[in-house]
Amino acid sequence: MTYCVGMWLESGLVFASDSRTNAGVDHIATFRKMTVYEKPGDRVLVMLAAGNLSVTQGVINILNEDAHPSNGQETIWTVASLFHAARIIGAALRKVYDVDGSHLKQHREEFNAAIILGGQIQGERPRLFNIYSAGNFIESTPETCYFQIGEIKYGKPIIDRLITRQSSLIEGAKCALLSFDSTIRSNISVGLPIDLLCYERDRLRIDFQRCIDKDDPYFNEIKRLWGEGLRETFATIPDPSWQKRLEPV
Amino acid sequence: MTYCVGMWLESGLVFASDSRTNAGVDHIATFRKMTVYEKPGDRVLVMLAAGNLSVTQGVINILNEDAHPSNGQETIWTVASLFHAARIIGAALRKVYDVDGSHLKQHREEFNAAIILGGQIQGERPRLFNIYSAGNFIESTPETCYFQIGEIKYGKPIIDRLITRQSSLIEGAKCALLSFDSTIRSNISVGLPIDLLCYERDRLRIDFQRCIDKDDPYFNEIKRLWGEGLRETFATIPDPSWQKRLEPV
Repeated sequence: MTYCVGMWLESGLVFASDSRTNAGVDHIATFRKMTVYEKPGDRVLVMLAAGNLSVTQGVINILNEDAHPSNGQETIWTVASLFHAARIIGAALRKVYDVDGSHLKQHREEFNAAIILGGQIQGERPRLFNIYSAGNFIESTPETCYFQIGEIKYGKPIIDRLITRQSSLIEGAKCALLSFDSTIRSNISVGLPIDLLCYERDRLRIDFQRCIDKDDPYFNEIKRLWGEGLRETFATIPDPSWQKRLEPV
Repeated sequence: MTYCVGMWLESGLVFASDSRTNAGVDHIATFRKMTVYEKPGDRVLVMLAAGNLSVTQGVINILNEDAHPSNGQETIWTVASLFHAARIIGAALRKVYDVDGSHLKQHREEFNAAIILGGQIQGERPRLFNIYSAGNFIESTPETCYFQIGEIKYGKPIIDRLITRQSSLIEGAKCALLSFDSTIRSNISVGLPIDLLCYERDRLRIDFQRCIDKDDPYFNEIKRLWGEGLRETFATIPDPSWQKRLEPV
């Protein structure tokens, strides 16, 4: 399993992804799920991938092979909008499906891939897309300013409660780390290190990217403070007025 | 979908279940998921059910029909231990499977049921079981003092952080309500009212049972206080030392 989140904030974009891949609990490995395409001053594209690793690695290989086409075809390095970049990734997914889809079915494996694509291309505002296995996709709107893929449920309530489109990049980064902490505690198939990347609107370059492992002092500190804060908040919540009916008679 | 949780605490047992059933988003209805068998001074058994409603209602009907057997066979009203009560419920599930299993398969419906059974029978300590579709089951141990069934993921992190076997009944009830709040916010297929029941160890009767609907003042109060507390805790968590790299250059 995998957990990835992308946030589309007024101040910019926040991306986080875990690094665990498992084909059964006896076959766990570390693979990074974040791929970055950066041409400073022109474009920053960040891709997070969940699902069947052979499929998502296939997509990345196709994107890399197609990066310098002889026929003048558009690539993620040349397209003028994120919408067209999402189309290119969708088309790569469909190419992998054409090769592997029927064979996976023969072996009762699902063709299962989910990709978050976000970033900014010169001349456009920052954008964030959620691309499905079929190669179709949706885009973030102010009402829904984040996407999650993979093992999304454990870490969703904390984002729903804390993040709005007006949150700062710092708030987004902190909340993403806490969302990962909730997920990692509850599901062994999501694991460290976490790749964290923050993109500030209109910079057209990456100023902040960090790989957070188990020894990261800041991650350990906020995990501890968050856990303590939750327990303190819980302790201050008043007992119910029906409490007396719960006391020994 | 459904969400149910049962906690096995030193002080007793806490049960909570929602009331929403859906067969697609255009077919949502209210059904209670909690069934109580109480003979004061002798036994209290509480059953929470998730999954295919026709299956779990079938189980309850079989239990009721078998309540007064002519052949002197044991029933949930006469068995001497919760272990045997769990076996009787497992056997009822298998009876429903024998009748409906192959037909559900023909219509590509899964035979899908999950049951939490907890309570106390005179002469035993309180016990808590998680019964699967196949009629087999597991029992709570001190290391794992709660079971969830149905839509379990959204509401799991909060229980993992706050509840231990030493928590009081009041703490268990409060945490169960907050766990439901997290779930209801994130998944429209889980809905009010919540049935809440607390059983105090060795009482052998139910002293507290409550149906919590959207107008319940206490539920609304703790939802508000919890949300505010989380946001305040989040605000006090220090920014990372790498923050400066996120500020405009």
